[in-house]
Amino acid sequence: MSFHIHRQLLADCHLLGRLTHCWVLLHRNASVPWFILVPETDCGDLLDLPHQERDVVTTECARISDFVKDHWRLSKVNFAAIGNKVSQMHLHVIGRSPDDSCWPRVVWGNLESDATWKEKQVEKICADLEKALTARGEHFACGPDVGRTVTG
Amino acid sequence: MSFHIHRQLLADCHLLGRLTHCWVLLHRNASVPWFILVPETDCGDLLDLPHQERDVVTTECARISDFVKDHWRLSKVNFAAIGNKVSQMHLHVIGRSPDDSCWPRVVWGNLESDATWKEKQVEKICADLEKALTARGEHFACGPDVGRTVTG
Repeated sequence: MSFHIHRQLLADCHLLGRLTHCWVLLHRNASVPWFILVPETDCGDLLDLPHQERDVVTTECARISDFVKDHWRLSKVNFAAIGNKVSQMHLHVIGRSPDDSCWPRVVWGNLESDATWKEKQVEKICADLEKALTARGEHFACGPDVGRTVTG
Repeated sequence: MSFHIHRQLLADCHLLGRLTHCWVLLHRNASVPWFILVPETDCGDLLDLPHQERDVVTTECARISDFVKDHWRLSKVNFAAIGNKVSQMHLHVIGRSPDDSCWPRVVWGNLESDATWKEKQVEKICADLEKALTARGEHFACGPDVGRTVTG
């Protein structure tokens, strides 16, 4: 099977690993904890997926949402399937807080900070995510090798 | 059962009716076909809903997405659960097109036009929606009386 994550998503994000159905990316902008899930599908819109596939994909988004809320101690997550600029389906799971730099506005077009995650932070987030997901019985493959298999 | 749709949503939208689990609203801004679904729940985030309830709610969003694509002959829908300003759960199902006034930006904060739907247009959309949903075996109650039972 050959699946390529869109090069714009790879440019904008760190590739953390993959769940059973979705690749898990972390947006490079560190103003907010912003995860992007890329399901292996040719369908562009989440609501057009067959029922069972949509359910599996949304469940994986819920796992990431749980992690974001636990890890950053947040009570709010924004969830969205937009795809106006990059047509490949990708799902935003974004931890939000009244303390973040663009609250209560949406992040798209409103992030004024260009803060980035340090390499050590990305590694720590990835390791913590793997631990949290594994504890819930999810399969998650994490690490830089995962990235190299899909780029190019 | 007493359920109140948030007054800001009622101020921003026409209340069209309800599906089995969600109230269906149409945003007053007519720049794009922008539906908002309000499930009867106290939970604030879609991804925090129990699995089965999330599935039912997302399925109702998919029905509205199908209608939007058919009715306006669009190939793209933006789907989002934000809720930073109005905490009551409400789900955006928005028909998008390269021809609309804020493409490819998201609609939030970017709609420059203040075009509104005419009363006759809202009635027609509601009647067409009822017809489309009924044809698919969905229960949809439509009409102005529906609105009065939940306002105030």
